[in-house]
Amino acid sequence: MKDKNYFLSKAQENYPKLNFTVLTPDVSEFTASSGDSVILDFGKHAVGHFSFSLDNVDRFMDAPVRLIIRFGEDMREINDDISQYIGNVSKTWLQEEILNLDYPQKTEMPRRYACRYIKITVDSTNFPIRLFDFSFTASTSADISALEPSDTKDALLKKIDCVATDTLKDCMQTFFEDGPKRDRRLWIGDLRLEALTNYYTFKNLEIVKRCLYLFAAGECNKLGFLPSYVYETPYYKSGEANIADYALLYVVSVCDYYEHTADISVVNDLLQICKSQLDSFEAILDENLIVTRQDGWFAFIDWCPGLEKLTALQGVYLYTLERFSELLKAIGDKDFNKYSSLLPLVRSACKKHLYNESSNAFINGLDNKQFSVHSQIWMILGGVISGDEAKNLLLSCLDNKDAKQPVTPYMRHYVTEAMLKLGMKENAVQYLKNLWGGMIELGADTFWEAYVPDDPDFSPYYDRKGNSLCHAWSCTPSYFIRKYKM
Amino acid sequence: MKDKNYFLSKAQENYPKLNFTVLTPDVSEFTASSGDSVILDFGKHAVGHFSFSLDNVDRFMDAPVRLIIRFGEDMREINDDISQYIGNVSKTWLQEEILNLDYPQKTEMPRRYACRYIKITVDSTNFPIRLFDFSFTASTSADISALEPSDTKDALLKKIDCVATDTLKDCMQTFFEDGPKRDRRLWIGDLRLEALTNYYTFKNLEIVKRCLYLFAAGECNKLGFLPSYVYETPYYKSGEANIADYALLYVVSVCDYYEHTADISVVNDLLQICKSQLDSFEAILDENLIVTRQDGWFAFIDWCPGLEKLTALQGVYLYTLERFSELLKAIGDKDFNKYSSLLPLVRSACKKHLYNESSNAFINGLDNKQFSVHSQIWMILGGVISGDEAKNLLLSCLDNKDAKQPVTPYMRHYVTEAMLKLGMKENAVQYLKNLWGGMIELGADTFWEAYVPDDPDFSPYYDRKGNSLCHAWSCTPSYFIRKYKM
Repeated sequence: MKDKNYFLSKAQENYPKLNFTVLTPDVSEFTASSGDSVILDFGKHAVGHFSFSLDNVDRFMDAPVRLIIRFGEDMREINDDISQYIGNVSKTWLQEEILNLDYPQKTEMPRRYACRYIKITVDSTNFPIRLFDFSFTASTSADISALEPSDTKDALLKKIDCVATDTLKDCMQTFFEDGPKRDRRLWIGDLRLEALTNYYTFKNLEIVKRCLYLFAAGECNKLGFLPSYVYETPYYKSGEANIADYALLYVVSVCDYYEHTADISVVNDLLQICKSQLDSFEAILDENLIVTRQDGWFAFIDWCPGLEKLTALQGVYLYTLERFSELLKAIGDKDFNKYSSLLPLVRSACKKHLYNESSNAFINGLDNKQFSVHSQIWMILGGVISGDEAKNLLLSCLDNKDAKQPVTPYMRHYVTEAMLKLGMKENAVQYLKNLWGGMIELGADTFWEAYVPDDPDFSPYYDRKGNSLCHAWSCTPSYFIRKYKM
Repeated sequence: MKDKNYFLSKAQENYPKLNFTVLTPDVSEFTASSGDSVILDFGKHAVGHFSFSLDNVDRFMDAPVRLIIRFGEDMREINDDISQYIGNVSKTWLQEEILNLDYPQKTEMPRRYACRYIKITVDSTNFPIRLFDFSFTASTSADISALEPSDTKDALLKKIDCVATDTLKDCMQTFFEDGPKRDRRLWIGDLRLEALTNYYTFKNLEIVKRCLYLFAAGECNKLGFLPSYVYETPYYKSGEANIADYALLYVVSVCDYYEHTADISVVNDLLQICKSQLDSFEAILDENLIVTRQDGWFAFIDWCPGLEKLTALQGVYLYTLERFSELLKAIGDKDFNKYSSLLPLVRSACKKHLYNESSNAFINGLDNKQFSVHSQIWMILGGVISGDEAKNLLLSCLDNKDAKQPVTPYMRHYVTEAMLKLGMKENAVQYLKNLWGGMIELGADTFWEAYVPDDPDFSPYYDRKGNSLCHAWSCTPSYFIRKYKM
């Protein structure tokens, strides 16, 4: 029987091997008294464990030494005053430890960190000390030797591809993490984009299977939607949010998997769950086939503040329905018609109920006029409009200062995908160069969770210090560059 | 050849076995949100390692939890604002850790602490957490089962004896520590008093031998004096102070050892070092046989502020000379006459040069008139005066508000010893009850490094928070109560 235990055992079977690399920083040793500090630069972003040695210089250290050790994904995080943190995600994500060391010793810090820089401040010592033997053991389940360089001739795209694969690599641990600094959790929205990029880069199929099974073992909410995230450590635990667009994108992730592997056994294991996600969604459509608003955190779409999400969510439903229908067709499933027959009906409903003729754009739901890039993009990806009409709408919404704009590389992935769907490859290339290249211009070693070109301090959590600077959903340029031979 | 390696190998041969006891506090579990705190009381002072478990309550902890864990030898240390610490010993001795824990887990804290109370403050958590499975694994090389109760009928003396043996027990680890909170080091002054009390309580001869050999391996300074302390961990290291009275008391410690064990093999190993300590002291006597002041930290005697120490030091020399002469006589050493013949000469010199006829008291050195208990006591212990003259001087100096008074149980040990030498047993009993009983009245579970009845905040280090509240040199009431059948 395909129950939770079955899915967890399949997840365990596909536990990926971690590969370790020892990194050393630009500084090999540091002699310090109270108040001194040193910043170590490992040259690149990495995820793993830090160790160092402490010894006395002339006099034996006759009292414990207190060190403050700060880990920064970038230099801003090294210099931030974290006592001023006001974000709404836990301040414990800010990577800083206070260590008291009794004797000269080698210290292997037990927690895992995500960083390029480490700042060690000697808070207190009686006599000068020497810090040395700095070592960072980086881990990833990505196999770097499996990665071929991209074929692109464009220098910026080449650079973007490298940063994107570094981002994915550092998020690939024993599962696809959303961000190795925060939340270190398996989210469907990230999984889908990580898996997609992985097919074109590290080609680690185990980790994809593991993640698909980990969700299959999760507890659905009363609407029938899968958990949007699960915990792996210290024991498996289903998450407590069941966002509708993520539940749908789980189905898309299964379709992607089959498309890239033709592995029918996994699809057979997960098919019923996929169907139930679509059935659950169908159950909350109103008589016009338009999704009805539900309580709680119902849709994600993007971290754009004040965004109304129902139209975009309706687009995610159509996008999923189309992909799932293709899968059912490919595997000859008896329910192909049941799902595929909904597609033209729902598309018509969207055009009828969600399109505002006077503004020539999709508005948000039945009772809201909000104009957003998100609504247009998902209606395009959902196949509600196409051709020049769609191209013009896409370009105009991105240019419109009054339209809600994407703030995450996650949503921008779907913008890029919409461009490519519409044959706008040049626009897509330019979009990647602007939006991911913009992060590189600001010094990114890995791509960020959120990025607003005009607002370097933007944070979905009301404090930039809580942002993840190596975020899985931002790794997809490598997918585009490699798949579309940019 | 009896070189450093020989002595270290003998020290290693006598490495004591540690005995472990698992203690649980009055609180078995604690459910907490950010800002909550709990104080665990283990019912008695102990030295060892703390462990606890952390779990979520209803919701899985979705971010690391930050705990502040404070260890207190008493409740004042639990409630102190350590950010206001101004002492001149390192603030890193204040026992507090900040822990970030990623997941529900059992945490075994790696450092050793000395405490009765532990306060856990939940600095930050997103969701309520549960803390439980609190456990403190106490260690000591004392064998509690070897300890017979004291015969005293006096309830307060009985209580003092218990607190004193607890103090000694917690200082007995892999060597005789001065204090298990601070400095966790082997000092001669503490060793002598710990060993003395140990002969009448736990009777662990291994640890005494180990400590005597650890000093024998030390590096003497240019005057020829042994180091006053040594480090054992993480590797053996000779200390960087060579206090003259401590160098002499090393010799007394060897005499004590022979007196209580008749173990000639250890004495033979250490005899040459003992002789060289006395020879080195003789070399710094002036033409009148009075010690000359030397540079640096030359004498300890007591932590009494502003104390002039030369006369007391001269008394320590005589005291040592007498004990060592007795040892040489007992073992039939050829140099007996060489040392014993000095005794009457130096005693006469003291009476002539250090006694002030007009004030009927010993003053400090040749150029200083300071009147202190310390000078009188050490001249008595040195045999410079005796009988009623000595009794009257002893009582009058303890009563004299203008006299410098002892501030440590260490110096008060020698006051008590002087009383007993003069046959003043009743005074000694009352002195123990007042000065050690006073600490018990203030709640002491173990005896303190320093205690001034009128000044509960007195500290040799300018901040009470740096004081050790379980200090080896304060354990000697058990020696007196048991040896003198009080």
